[in-house]
Amino acid sequence: MKALRFHGPGDVRVDEIDEPTVRPGTVKIAVAWCGICGTDLHEFLEGPIFVPADGHPHPLSGETPPVTLGHEFSGTVEELGEGVEGLAVGDGVVVEPYFVCDDCDPCRSGNYNLCTRMGFIGLAGGGGGLGEKVVVDARWVHPVGDVPLDQAALVEPLAVGHHAVERSGVQAGQTAFVGGAGPIGLLLAAVLKGIGVRTVLSEVSSARKEKARETGVADLVLDPTVDDVPARVAELTGGRGADVAFECAGVDAVLDLCLEVVRPAGVVVNVSIWGHRPVVDVATIVLKEIDLRGTIAYRRDHAATIELVASGRVDPAPFITARIALEEVVEEGFDTLVHRKDTAVKILVHP
Amino acid sequence: MKALRFHGPGDVRVDEIDEPTVRPGTVKIAVAWCGICGTDLHEFLEGPIFVPADGHPHPLSGETPPVTLGHEFSGTVEELGEGVEGLAVGDGVVVEPYFVCDDCDPCRSGNYNLCTRMGFIGLAGGGGGLGEKVVVDARWVHPVGDVPLDQAALVEPLAVGHHAVERSGVQAGQTAFVGGAGPIGLLLAAVLKGIGVRTVLSEVSSARKEKARETGVADLVLDPTVDDVPARVAELTGGRGADVAFECAGVDAVLDLCLEVVRPAGVVVNVSIWGHRPVVDVATIVLKEIDLRGTIAYRRDHAATIELVASGRVDPAPFITARIALEEVVEEGFDTLVHRKDTAVKILVHP
Repeated sequence: MKALRFHGPGDVRVDEIDEPTVRPGTVKIAVAWCGICGTDLHEFLEGPIFVPADGHPHPLSGETPPVTLGHEFSGTVEELGEGVEGLAVGDGVVVEPYFVCDDCDPCRSGNYNLCTRMGFIGLAGGGGGLGEKVVVDARWVHPVGDVPLDQAALVEPLAVGHHAVERSGVQAGQTAFVGGAGPIGLLLAAVLKGIGVRTVLSEVSSARKEKARETGVADLVLDPTVDDVPARVAELTGGRGADVAFECAGVDAVLDLCLEVVRPAGVVVNVSIWGHRPVVDVATIVLKEIDLRGTIAYRRDHAATIELVASGRVDPAPFITARIALEEVVEEGFDTLVHRKDTAVKILVHP
Repeated sequence: MKALRFHGPGDVRVDEIDEPTVRPGTVKIAVAWCGICGTDLHEFLEGPIFVPADGHPHPLSGETPPVTLGHEFSGTVEELGEGVEGLAVGDGVVVEPYFVCDDCDPCRSGNYNLCTRMGFIGLAGGGGGLGEKVVVDARWVHPVGDVPLDQAALVEPLAVGHHAVERSGVQAGQTAFVGGAGPIGLLLAAVLKGIGVRTVLSEVSSARKEKARETGVADLVLDPTVDDVPARVAELTGGRGADVAFECAGVDAVLDLCLEVVRPAGVVVNVSIWGHRPVVDVATIVLKEIDLRGTIAYRRDHAATIELVASGRVDPAPFITARIALEEVVEEGFDTLVHRKDTAVKILVHP
């Protein structure tokens, strides 16, 4: 079968490899669609980061490069390993793409996304969504019912947004501020809208502002280079400030803006993966008794996320901006995300 | 009566002023002891900060300098205004030294310490603990029972520690890390010990390390310039990390150390008032899903704090490092805190 594999920085290849075989407790999936994540791009440009380095096998997968990429995927169950229940051949499914140890303190506390040896299928080994077939432990497989499989490929990044929203504690009827309308900011806003939260989105890129307006995920789209964002948020909230804010840009000024627009005793959730150490207005965290919370990936978010999509409260369709073949991943996928990133939200690959 | 008043930066004077008179709903207190707070020192050196500026009366007190200083005080009830219940002349008391508006969103949510117009008695007007007598609203007066009044003067800074501990959610039997053994770090550690939390204290100053060891508030006193603090915390906690950490130094490296030693899904409470914007390791907040929480002053913490002292679980006596007269505040108080700060924990003034 064909699979797009990471061999080293700047070196990904469509390789012909053996099909994985099903083992007891696992499920073989024929991949339908796989989204390209910023993480995949970073591995291509600067990796290995989450991919294990040569000579340093991942502690749980045991693998080193080459490894198949792709962790945002949907597909159809093709074969069930011995002992697997609750799934049937032909089911549409998505995968929570984890390797976890089940033994560290976070795992034993139920926080498996914080596993000290955690790895992602599609980065740390175990095949991936950019291969034709993949075999994964049944525990990570979530049926999607009637959700079309192209839309289902967005469940993974939507689950990232869902987990961030859960971390914030925001409730229907409250007001949220989202700083940054990249793919995660937009999908997170879609989750907020889906659960009935009033949302203000802030973004500087024209294409991204346009996408935010077009998809209707935000009640208000502001540009901090033009608008007085704190004043507009205050106006919208009767002077109170936003109940929660989400940093989705990885930009110092956006984090400070989140701290500024949130109300006293509010919550700011940092969703970005930072490539540098920002300068932070900690005095405001103190004087307003803000909770600044980190969020990473997801845990027990997939079922609720699938339900949001299945019920129509979140429509992933407008966020699919391209569909490409495996052979086009570098030219039409990574290059677009580098050079024309503001026009792309989610590029889906059909392996 | 005599009162130490702030007239301007570097200009505090012992003035002869009229005694305040009791109004309905207020209590007149003869001050016994008043601690000098870092805030008082900052007002003296660089003020007005919390003190209103000339020509800009505080919105709630209506006052401008000169204002009497001192907000960490104890005393004896001398006279009760009309309608005051639950207090008697002669009662030993402490004061929660607030002006709040009762009208803003934080006040209406019960978070009166986050009042958008909040001021402190002893900074924003209303007299202060560095005057012989003070009249305050009865709602802010807390009887201390048999607690000696010199020890009771430490209830206010202990309540700051108590509130920070409440914000952390730490439970008896868990492990806390405290970064910085200045007055607030030491008193916060005393509260942690009082409620049965195992505490690791980190400090570089020899005098402060010595004080921490001598008072026994910490189970382990470490010096980050000598000890491998994360390794020692890991060793103590079976590799888990501290459940909570408290930044009490206002130093970038100490905040990063807090983020490093705390366990995944742990809580870091920032207690310091920062004079600059620190560079923060936000990536660690994200990857470990840490909650970084601000804390300021106290709300509904005084009764529990007094009970900790009254029951003997917290002994404030070892933290009283000097007792001086009103006339000595500049030379023996502020100058000591500037030039020999590591030897002083709490300097009490008897007005």
